[in-house]
Amino acid sequence: MPTTKMHPDRLFPSDPATRDIARELYAAVADAPICSPHGHVPASLLADNEPFASPTELLITGDHYVTRVLHGAGIPLSTVQAPAGEPAVDPREAWRVLAAHWHLFRATPVQYWLEYQLGEVFGVTTRLSAETADAVYDEVDEKLRDEAFRPRALFERFGVDVLATTDDPADDLAAHRALAADPSFAGRVLPTFRADRVMDPSAPGWLAAVDRLAAASGIPCDTYEGLLAALRARRAFFRSVGGTSSDTGVPDAWAIPLDPAEAARIHHAAFRGRATAAEGVAYRRDILYRLIEMAADDGMVMQLHPGVHRNHHAPTLARHGADTGHDMPLPTGFTEPLRQALNDFGTGTALRLVLFTVDETAFSRELAPLAGFYPSVYVGAPWWFLDTPDAMERYRRAITDSAGFAKTSGFIDDTRAFCSIPARHDMARRADASYLASLVATHRLTEADAAEIAVELVSRIPYDTFRIPR
Amino acid sequence: MPTTKMHPDRLFPSDPATRDIARELYAAVADAPICSPHGHVPASLLADNEPFASPTELLITGDHYVTRVLHGAGIPLSTVQAPAGEPAVDPREAWRVLAAHWHLFRATPVQYWLEYQLGEVFGVTTRLSAETADAVYDEVDEKLRDEAFRPRALFERFGVDVLATTDDPADDLAAHRALAADPSFAGRVLPTFRADRVMDPSAPGWLAAVDRLAAASGIPCDTYEGLLAALRARRAFFRSVGGTSSDTGVPDAWAIPLDPAEAARIHHAAFRGRATAAEGVAYRRDILYRLIEMAADDGMVMQLHPGVHRNHHAPTLARHGADTGHDMPLPTGFTEPLRQALNDFGTGTALRLVLFTVDETAFSRELAPLAGFYPSVYVGAPWWFLDTPDAMERYRRAITDSAGFAKTSGFIDDTRAFCSIPARHDMARRADASYLASLVATHRLTEADAAEIAVELVSRIPYDTFRIPR
Amino acid sequence: MPTTKMHPDRLFPSDPATRDIARELYAAVADAPICSPHGHVPASLLADNEPFASPTELLITGDHYVTRVLHGAGIPLSTVQAPAGEPAVDPREAWRVLAAHWHLFRATPVQYWLEYQLGEVFGVTTRLSAETADAVYDEVDEKLRDEAFRPRALFERFGVDVLATTDDPADDLAAHRALAADPSFAGRVLPTFRADRVMDPSAPGWLAAVDRLAAASGIPCDTYEGLLAALRARRAFFRSVGGTSSDTGVPDAWAIPLDPAEAARIHHAAFRGRATAAEGVAYRRDILYRLIEMAADDGMVMQLHPGVHRNHHAPTLARHGADTGHDMPLPTGFTEPLRQALNDFGTGTALRLVLFTVDETAFSRELAPLAGFYPSVYVGAPWWFLDTPDAMERYRRAITDSAGFAKTSGFIDDTRAFCSIPARHDMARRADASYLASLVATHRLTEADAAEIAVELVSRIPYDTFRIPR
Repeated sequence: MPTTKMHPDRLFPSDPATRDIARELYAAVADAPICSPHGHVPASLLADNEPFASPTELLITGDHYVTRVLHGAGIPLSTVQAPAGEPAVDPREAWRVLAAHWHLFRATPVQYWLEYQLGEVFGVTTRLSAETADAVYDEVDEKLRDEAFRPRALFERFGVDVLATTDDPADDLAAHRALAADPSFAGRVLPTFRADRVMDPSAPGWLAAVDRLAAASGIPCDTYEGLLAALRARRAFFRSVGGTSSDTGVPDAWAIPLDPAEAARIHHAAFRGRATAAEGVAYRRDILYRLIEMAADDGMVMQLHPGVHRNHHAPTLARHGADTGHDMPLPTGFTEPLRQALNDFGTGTALRLVLFTVDETAFSRELAPLAGFYPSVYVGAPWWFLDTPDAMERYRRAITDSAGFAKTSGFIDDTRAFCSIPARHDMARRADASYLASLVATHRLTEADAAEIAVELVSRIPYDTFRIPR
Repeated sequence: MPTTKMHPDRLFPSDPATRDIARELYAAVADAPICSPHGHVPASLLADNEPFASPTELLITGDHYVTRVLHGAGIPLSTVQAPAGEPAVDPREAWRVLAAHWHLFRATPVQYWLEYQLGEVFGVTTRLSAETADAVYDEVDEKLRDEAFRPRALFERFGVDVLATTDDPADDLAAHRALAADPSFAGRVLPTFRADRVMDPSAPGWLAAVDRLAAASGIPCDTYEGLLAALRARRAFFRSVGGTSSDTGVPDAWAIPLDPAEAARIHHAAFRGRATAAEGVAYRRDILYRLIEMAADDGMVMQLHPGVHRNHHAPTLARHGADTGHDMPLPTGFTEPLRQALNDFGTGTALRLVLFTVDETAFSRELAPLAGFYPSVYVGAPWWFLDTPDAMERYRRAITDSAGFAKTSGFIDDTRAFCSIPARHDMARRADASYLASLVATHRLTEADAAEIAVELVSRIPYDTFRIPR
Repeated sequence: MPTTKMHPDRLFPSDPATRDIARELYAAVADAPICSPHGHVPASLLADNEPFASPTELLITGDHYVTRVLHGAGIPLSTVQAPAGEPAVDPREAWRVLAAHWHLFRATPVQYWLEYQLGEVFGVTTRLSAETADAVYDEVDEKLRDEAFRPRALFERFGVDVLATTDDPADDLAAHRALAADPSFAGRVLPTFRADRVMDPSAPGWLAAVDRLAAASGIPCDTYEGLLAALRARRAFFRSVGGTSSDTGVPDAWAIPLDPAEAARIHHAAFRGRATAAEGVAYRRDILYRLIEMAADDGMVMQLHPGVHRNHHAPTLARHGADTGHDMPLPTGFTEPLRQALNDFGTGTALRLVLFTVDETAFSRELAPLAGFYPSVYVGAPWWFLDTPDAMERYRRAITDSAGFAKTSGFIDDTRAFCSIPARHDMARRADASYLASLVATHRLTEADAAEIAVELVSRIPYDTFRIPR
């Protein structure tokens, strides 16, 4: 019977001499603590430390990496994940759907991560299939009732040192504060300031988000200046709870300041529900500029990931909500869009801009050249759609030539699936070891330098990039 | 003397362990029947079953893959292919030109295909060169007079099960019907509905094409609604003759419905020869939307390949006609251009959209993410300019992560050169075996799964993708 | 103690069988003379033959490949290179800065080139580091006082046969003429005509550049026709001094002729300092068309490299001048922008257009298809940001399929750093040997053909491409 036992040499180069080098480089970082400076696990998961409800909730529900593949094969989303507002699906039935379609995931990173979780985290030795679905479900389900599989125990077992979350500016960060105050919890869970919802005044939900921001900050946001002041205040609050960075997702990277009077005019119109789409774009690009300006002032690391068309399929958005697998990458530019901001703030010491892309053509053409020159610019790890062994190799081969290793961010897992954290970090460590090994094998890097870099990539680099104290 | 004998391990990875795996995976599919769901061999070739006129007609004339390389090296097209309306070139002279310039093709897929044809199809053991030109010509020429080298005999020897052609909506499909009715012909030759000529009313030839469509369908096309009705009628006719898919080539993928009154207005203006270029674009994008709508209704698989600037060099078009080697790829988007159509029809069960690109940046950025989510979207095989071992590997490495294998189309040969069909399918099978072997060697796929996928890629997948009965 | 001794197998594939082939292919070209048809070493360096002032001047100052990496790491440019108009930095201090940050260059081509220069050119066996900075400095500095390390001696030792420079149309080419007339100098130093400064009449410096052109040519340039006549005259002068090619760098490749009256109107406005930015663009695109027209007339090879945003960071431009590491690549098109010019001149025998890109997506999508069809079009070697072993491999894998080897330019080093010339050519020869070896190992090319190609790539091809007599 096929098993999920993962091969110790997985992802290493097939050439024996290069593989030997990769093995050695990997061995030195395999068990290093995990620094996860960008992700979507909620802090409450660890604060509450409740058992996971079921294998399905843990491994399928809400993980659009998994559900989109099923959807793409013609399986309605509602089979594995209830529409918004409807009762949850039967977890065992949803699990059976995944198991029966396991072949769809062959050779994908999703299969790799899930097999890692089943095999390495839960010790399941049976391979998932329609036939074994129930047995595997039961085996995981039983483990989940064990104290050792509660979030905090797993956090510790995974060796997570730092876990950053993603949070609305109006969030009270109660869970973060509780964890920080809890002497029984040794890890660090840091908030990340994400103000996307207040950027586009022509988008639904803008006014509500602005109202929440005003309430949270105690600063009226009915003026443009008020909004900026409230954002500054909440950034300070995030920092007071340990936050070191912000995260911003926008359709494009244009950061163009408006004349304050024009910004105020649009803000005012938006408050009356009258901002046009064009005004929304202009305002959003102004706010992006202002966020960069704030980062150049307060030193919060600014993560920026433009170029995603959110919610491409309106009917799915209406029925299932956002983050359900139909966000789509777009061609993405950085060099022109960020020029003004980089001219104004790009060589100062406070600004740190970590640029992520879902359009890999930007790697060698824009991101590496920008990071190569501007001290403020770092190239974010290959993420979303590119968080795979092959794309990680393409990333390194496109970036190192112009920007080396020191201007790359270190790995981020960007995951909503808690147990995929070690799977994803392990994949990245193997991918980097393989890349470094290929450089050693072709005599472009000494083995000693490669060993040093492999260690830095999981230690100094992510902490320094995200200004997380060590 | 150098020979054309091809190495049995050609295209397999050089790493010995990986090569062994590739060999085994390939062995299981090497002799599998050929399903060719997209190509440009005319049905009449098989219906008439006349001998090929000469080695030149068979291997050079009309194959822009071959003639463009010669042209690019400064050899006038007219040396190897007569201008439109002029008497044919001397075939032996043209052959000598190719032979004398054989070095231009070193390491190109064209050389690979031609050497396959000479060596594997015609048993030529002498390598082509200026010195051997006449001897090789004579050897092939003699074979062509043999019954065993007539089209039907070759069709059978190549193991072709299904061959799809490309046909104008007004075509009477007489050759297809004759073949289907002929008990002595066991293969299947299926028409493909290609309505490009009636899409842009500002283009020369639109009115003539619409007139032919009206005549063929018996439906007056002097109105926009008439044109749509005629297209629907001809699609039904194509299906009645076994057609399962349509093919559409457009400069861009924008599919935007017009208000019917506006479409009717442009249609009317075009009938008086007064459609502007801008109206031509708007109308063409409307028709693309309507074709998707029809496909969502009648279930014909819709192949779409946008992004080619046809006939880049006007003087060559004037002298030699279309398809003479100067069609050029353009940057190509899919995510925004197809959004409305995918919102309207993309999750239904009838629509199947096979998207091809000549801009490989779309692989990981647009095609894999779209196919990963939308059940209707499949990623077409790497074709035209990308139908090569290296590009096939880049395709798989860019696509598999987000869309697996099940949402890829299976290989299409897209060829006008009849004897290149087995050469091209063999290349694709070797390329896929090599890719799969690399996944096995790096422990990302079990050998059993790889073997299953290799077989599916040449059996279930092309038939299912193109809805061809097995 | 680590040394800079380079491994004899560096850059060769790690697979032993493939490496053996690469070794053999490389051995045949390792010591071939260097043809450098595009670079930025001034002719006066060789005409004057003065000793290099210091290791810093030789290896750091003015080499933006080196200084940008330091700047990107937060080290002010002024630490290693004085601002314009200020006294030079202390060379030993600047050297120490480089040495102390040597780790930033790990695995980059810059480290490779510098280690080649230190080890192979200067025989330094100590590896650079903060600790060894002074010792290495002293060792190189001492060598520089030796006759054997003067420019001409190095030129000879490097085996340079042809070195092309880059020169303003108004340059009197005195140094070139002196070298040509000097019986003691056996090499050839050829001027390259670069008229960028007179293309955009809205740019600062246009009028001064036009005035210099008028003075040099003796043709008044206060009219558009005068400017064109002056350019033609200076091209003839460059040819008379051995120049065979021109070089043009523009933000985009659009070449669109203006109505001469409109061009004259803009020219006239520009003379009064009143050309708008839009007029500047239209005029620049007209001049690009006229330069292609001239090349189609006088047969000077036209090098074109569009797609760079020059001087992205205005404060650095103001303080340090141009070419200081903040030129940034942009998305770049060729197929549409050059269509009209290629329709008008692209199939003639006089025009030769060598197209370079900093956007590697153009390789397979635009450059290889254009070069595959148009006899006038050649694909320039991967340069700037792409002049690295990995990018060279991507280039070959993207280009060969559609354009073979014969339509590629041969390597160009494009360097300002004199001693990096052999380092860069050696890197390219190893990269090509490795690529060819991989084709041989996968049976896509015979070993005999590979050997022939390897030799052609460093002999016939660069001379023929750039029309340099042999």
